[in-house]
Amino acid sequence: MVAPDLALAERLFDALAQRTRRGRGIERDTYGDGEQAAHDIVRQAAVAIGLEVAVDALGNLRMTLPGRDRAAAAAIVGSHLDSVPQGGNFDGAAGVVAGLAALSGFRAAGVAPPFDIAVMAIRGEESAWFDVAYIGSLGAFGRLDPACLDVRRFDTGATLAATLAAQGFSPEAIRERRPSLDPARVRAYLELHIEQGPVLAHAGLPAASVTGIRGCRRFRNATCTGRYGHSGALAREHRHDAVAATVALLHHMQGVWRRHEAAGEDLVLTSGEFCTNPALHGPSKVAGETRFVLDIRSLSDATMDAVADAARVAARRIGEEYRVQFDLGATSGSPPALMDPRLVAAFDQPFAMASGAGHDAAVFAQAGVPSGMIFVRNEHGSHNPDEAMDLADFAVANRALAAVLLDFPF
Amino acid sequence: MVAPDLALAERLFDALAQRTRRGRGIERDTYGDGEQAAHDIVRQAAVAIGLEVAVDALGNLRMTLPGRDRAAAAAIVGSHLDSVPQGGNFDGAAGVVAGLAALSGFRAAGVAPPFDIAVMAIRGEESAWFDVAYIGSLGAFGRLDPACLDVRRFDTGATLAATLAAQGFSPEAIRERRPSLDPARVRAYLELHIEQGPVLAHAGLPAASVTGIRGCRRFRNATCTGRYGHSGALAREHRHDAVAATVALLHHMQGVWRRHEAAGEDLVLTSGEFCTNPALHGPSKVAGETRFVLDIRSLSDATMDAVADAARVAARRIGEEYRVQFDLGATSGSPPALMDPRLVAAFDQPFAMASGAGHDAAVFAQAGVPSGMIFVRNEHGSHNPDEAMDLADFAVANRALAAVLLDFPF
Repeated sequence: MVAPDLALAERLFDALAQRTRRGRGIERDTYGDGEQAAHDIVRQAAVAIGLEVAVDALGNLRMTLPGRDRAAAAAIVGSHLDSVPQGGNFDGAAGVVAGLAALSGFRAAGVAPPFDIAVMAIRGEESAWFDVAYIGSLGAFGRLDPACLDVRRFDTGATLAATLAAQGFSPEAIRERRPSLDPARVRAYLELHIEQGPVLAHAGLPAASVTGIRGCRRFRNATCTGRYGHSGALAREHRHDAVAATVALLHHMQGVWRRHEAAGEDLVLTSGEFCTNPALHGPSKVAGETRFVLDIRSLSDATMDAVADAARVAARRIGEEYRVQFDLGATSGSPPALMDPRLVAAFDQPFAMASGAGHDAAVFAQAGVPSGMIFVRNEHGSHNPDEAMDLADFAVANRALAAVLLDFPF
Repeated sequence: MVAPDLALAERLFDALAQRTRRGRGIERDTYGDGEQAAHDIVRQAAVAIGLEVAVDALGNLRMTLPGRDRAAAAAIVGSHLDSVPQGGNFDGAAGVVAGLAALSGFRAAGVAPPFDIAVMAIRGEESAWFDVAYIGSLGAFGRLDPACLDVRRFDTGATLAATLAAQGFSPEAIRERRPSLDPARVRAYLELHIEQGPVLAHAGLPAASVTGIRGCRRFRNATCTGRYGHSGALAREHRHDAVAATVALLHHMQGVWRRHEAAGEDLVLTSGEFCTNPALHGPSKVAGETRFVLDIRSLSDATMDAVADAARVAARRIGEEYRVQFDLGATSGSPPALMDPRLVAAFDQPFAMASGAGHDAAVFAQAGVPSGMIFVRNEHGSHNPDEAMDLADFAVANRALAAVLLDFPF
């Protein structure tokens, strides 16, 4: 067992917080000064450790500890360095820091791994700035839709293409779908990340192996159209009440969730947006319309399909019952990404769980790279300044990561 | 049977539409040019008929056919002449027109009633302009809260006090709560009004007697506070989901409504506003808060109390179940106003129904004046340009009104 360089990890976390704090929160804006500052810190550390450093066409940073067989497919330890606006210090960065801490430990102990191990600091995982997720990882595999080049950063208004060019990176690589990573040349992808929910905190565990990243079927702009009317003058049988109908549908879907849960299926179901129309609603009116989201996530495509179908069937039935018209629209979303069972086992944790949030590991898994993730306990959720990872918990996960790298299961 | 002057009624409706149409809709703005134009038209007609005309301190117009006993308490036939912005031609005006048509018929037939019959064109019934309802009728009884003098008209920004003064009326009458009407001097109040719902249209009936005007208990700013979280990462047992909880509460309340309905109680229940917080919600977030309205209306105070209590009890239970905090707040609203059973019967209609919307008749009833209302069938609801009253239906109700005036039940 070669211990990771936890002193380096702590220095890096401090440096990142110091350089990228804006008010209460952390801001490492995608392809902006905040993300770049994080890349600079990490790159300097990699050079100091003696790693080989390379930057690809999209700014992804690859820091490699050469293996004994340089021709063998490399293992990549990665995560992203960008954050949401007013985010926390650990979401993303912890995975890059853990990789460097492991490789620094290996260097100090004079360990030469059988194959290259590269730490990859990935660009633009967060969709908060450009409304495009996984820019760096999808782009590295040539799988990013070129249409995203026209998406504008929500605050500066600059397109992704212009922003990339201004930073010296290459929008052409995206436009031509030119990959910089060949899945066949990647033995495995490993990612350490803070958990973005409270499961480990509730379970009293410092870390967990991740079984897979839930896919998502999302009715993003579902609507219910009824008819506005006077709240006092309309008897129930004459109403076309969009709120009553939507409430009936969403309450029914909570029951659908419970039934799938009781059958042992992985599922979470959320309506995080629900609004009558502020321009037309009123306290004395029956509502003529609602807009809502129905977000379905599972490790199983079949479960998501079944739940989306159940929503469509219920919307028809309840629509007739309440004399309204539901339009759930098409679903958008992402497929589930299962982690490689050999890596799930290799992390050797007492508990394994699904990830509800998306991660670059899903992109690697979908590109055909055997992938594994380890979660670190985190209080207060992520994507906010109160994100709180204990360094002792990080150390548990970092040691597990280092152990897998040195005793690779395949 | 002395027939009402339906030719006059038709001329008055035409004149009102011609003078107060603005684009598609009718605009007779409270204490503005539109309402004044309507008062001018009606006043000229009253003078032509030979009625005594008087205007009170708040601009309410009283047009009297003298009775044989001038000392006896008068019967008042009334309604309002203002409209909402982009309203229809009949809401309010039909009641004043019906009164004049009846008195014109009486004059032409040489009928002298046993007591004075006054048509009252009431000011400011609609709350759309000043966010104060029943300005004219409450003011006439000295029952209007003087605080409303500071309320500003939503479009001009002028206070009610300034607007009244500019029109030559007396804000002091409101400030000093000085009545111009003594309930003891009013035998009865009769109001013809278009129905503001579709009950008569569905029933295939031209008119109905009104049993009472529903009161209202309203939770105007109810909130549910949970905790924001990641829609994919939060298992059900760790959620504090404000939408799931609010949906459960409102769906439960629909069941409460059905049970009261099955027990034969008068009740309507509406949540016309329901919103997650647009500044904080998101398609990938469990919602941490909702805001909603719960509007409870009934002819029975006891029913409204029972439903409000049921909402409070359910909010506690469901709040615990979903680990969220409901704050329903205090209720606002108005008491129910029952119409006088002798007048309900005297209108001699095959059908009697509750009014869900408020009317000046509620103010008269609450002041202790025996009151009666007759509804006229109206397609497409009210408070919109598509309000559609058939003159044949109006004639049915106008004849019933004239008959009651000539064969008064008390």
